[in-house]
Amino acid sequence: MAGPQDIWPAPGTPLSELLTPLPVIDEARMAANIARAQAHLDGLGRAFRPHIKTHKLPEVARAQTEAGAVGINCQKVTEAEVFAEAGFDDILITYNILGPARLARLKVLNARISHLSVTADSAEVVAGLAATFDAAHPLTVLVECDTGGKRCGVQTPEAAASLAAEIAAAEGLRFGGLMTYPAPGGAAAVEGFVTAAKALLQEAGLECPVVTVGGTPDFFAAGDIPSATEHRAGTYVYNDRAMVRAGHATLEDCAMHILVTVVSRPTPDRAVIDAGSKALTSDLLGFQDHGLIVEYPGARITGLSEEHGVVDLSGIDGAGPKVGDVLRVIPNHTCVVTNLFDRMVFHDGERVTRVLDVAARGTVW
Amino acid sequence: MAGPQDIWPAPGTPLSELLTPLPVIDEARMAANIARAQAHLDGLGRAFRPHIKTHKLPEVARAQTEAGAVGINCQKVTEAEVFAEAGFDDILITYNILGPARLARLKVLNARISHLSVTADSAEVVAGLAATFDAAHPLTVLVECDTGGKRCGVQTPEAAASLAAEIAAAEGLRFGGLMTYPAPGGAAAVEGFVTAAKALLQEAGLECPVVTVGGTPDFFAAGDIPSATEHRAGTYVYNDRAMVRAGHATLEDCAMHILVTVVSRPTPDRAVIDAGSKALTSDLLGFQDHGLIVEYPGARITGLSEEHGVVDLSGIDGAGPKVGDVLRVIPNHTCVVTNLFDRMVFHDGERVTRVLDVAARGTVW
Repeated sequence: MAGPQDIWPAPGTPLSELLTPLPVIDEARMAANIARAQAHLDGLGRAFRPHIKTHKLPEVARAQTEAGAVGINCQKVTEAEVFAEAGFDDILITYNILGPARLARLKVLNARISHLSVTADSAEVVAGLAATFDAAHPLTVLVECDTGGKRCGVQTPEAAASLAAEIAAAEGLRFGGLMTYPAPGGAAAVEGFVTAAKALLQEAGLECPVVTVGGTPDFFAAGDIPSATEHRAGTYVYNDRAMVRAGHATLEDCAMHILVTVVSRPTPDRAVIDAGSKALTSDLLGFQDHGLIVEYPGARITGLSEEHGVVDLSGIDGAGPKVGDVLRVIPNHTCVVTNLFDRMVFHDGERVTRVLDVAARGTVW
Repeated sequence: MAGPQDIWPAPGTPLSELLTPLPVIDEARMAANIARAQAHLDGLGRAFRPHIKTHKLPEVARAQTEAGAVGINCQKVTEAEVFAEAGFDDILITYNILGPARLARLKVLNARISHLSVTADSAEVVAGLAATFDAAHPLTVLVECDTGGKRCGVQTPEAAASLAAEIAAAEGLRFGGLMTYPAPGGAAAVEGFVTAAKALLQEAGLECPVVTVGGTPDFFAAGDIPSATEHRAGTYVYNDRAMVRAGHATLEDCAMHILVTVVSRPTPDRAVIDAGSKALTSDLLGFQDHGLIVEYPGARITGLSEEHGVVDLSGIDGAGPKVGDVLRVIPNHTCVVTNLFDRMVFHDGERVTRVLDVAARGTVW
């Protein structure tokens, strides 16, 4: 009997024959996004380290490094394992790695690839790393700094310098520099924090080889942080509705669309599409609705259940879509959509080009 | 090298050795949820058809049918395929099935199992079904009614009777009855709609063998809809924070917990856990925060990124959790968590009992 795994189309299949809901990636738009971003950082003389969270695909990461990226950024050990297996040997894991099982895996990974680095923001995390690694295969550790993003990170330049000294003092660790994920528009705060921390590091006789900052929303303002040596970004590769709102991209730069089918037109003002939270996710990212319908920009996806999206058509002219119509949705947040599908379908115009296993889907450890 | 798939524990492993973030299911609580719900519907003389969306596991569906459920409820054709493959032969797909590829799969499925039924809410959907099925293997079709849920469904009893007549007139289709997903507290609206529709069906000489209603929040008020012959519910099997709020369950009835680790304590009022939207999902379901931390009910998970949950500790007494502490989170919505993980870990007390492939994960077609 047919099973869910025979659903994936062969290269050359017209998009009109695909089962919906399905995210598809426009090859030309993705290639242009990769080239434009790399050119911008090349122009600044800044290293680029793409975050693989958006695509989770070694094939796309390869396109990013071939364009000039120095390495990749992962968030978890198991993500990094997938990319090491695919041949990547310069990986930064921007996460506090804790606990014996995870540290044991990290040690195996560090012995296998030539450039592995992680971040830490507390003495507890540094202590776990220091107890795991030794001088034979030392691990590079950067200090994560909270420059206004209010997630992880040490709170002051003094705390950053102090933690750097703890790292440098451990036989199995090397201090690798400073890492931050800035708040939107937070360039001045980053620059101030980093400048102060670097002065303290210099007083202490510690070199700071890397200052890595990140994010797609402020990507084209990377020059506003002159202290940075490296930029990390993920979403730029596909772009999404939030990146259009942030001014980073236009709708024509959005490489991911979710193909959806109208399954019901219960009332003149209501349509229901076959994409719910299992296809679009519930990530709002500050929006009041769940994605942009390209063909009906005045329509609003007002509610999601797992397999249904309820669309308010009161804001459009005309009668709206019919039952059976296939529409394209630009998601609020592309990275989380990637995590829902076992494979990703790419296309050139109206034809499928390739179907790739989303190798790092579901890796949260 | 270690890969992400070697992460799953063997039976007998202590929960304290599991990598986080990880959802785990308490066997005893799940068994009690299944027994209590079945007993309630047995007492009403009402058939029970559990929705598999919550667990997506044939093994759990088997426990539900062994307890007395008449069959199962799926939402998509590919979900039903997984359960047919596992031996289930009474499946209701509560969805408008459209398009040649999906209809072809539905036809294969209908020839394979003894009792397949679907729903329809428009002439377009009925026309597609009628063109696909024939008298040799007729398909049972119920009419979906919008009784206030404002998703799919015909809007009036007259429209329901009219669509039922179209179904009954098609050689390859059989009219199977009425289906609705009520709005919360919508028993009176359902009863009114169904009573009126049944009167019209009787006038037209059409039998209405099934009236199927659903939902966990109003599960124990199922008796308020005397016209119903069958109840569908999914979430009751695990329960979650939304079901506790709805009064359906207590915190002690929640069988799913997400084990999470505190990875950062940047400030006295802030903790960061290693569970973000890739573990908890962004489903708010009307809450302002992203799940309940059992050990710190006064704490609030105020923000999620993919791999981080930011926790506001300002509402708790004492110093709060330390870096490295493992906590348990009851998710807002359990069904969508299931869809993120390839396998599900079950436990009895502090020991793993079994690890099951989430066979129907990711099936949106």
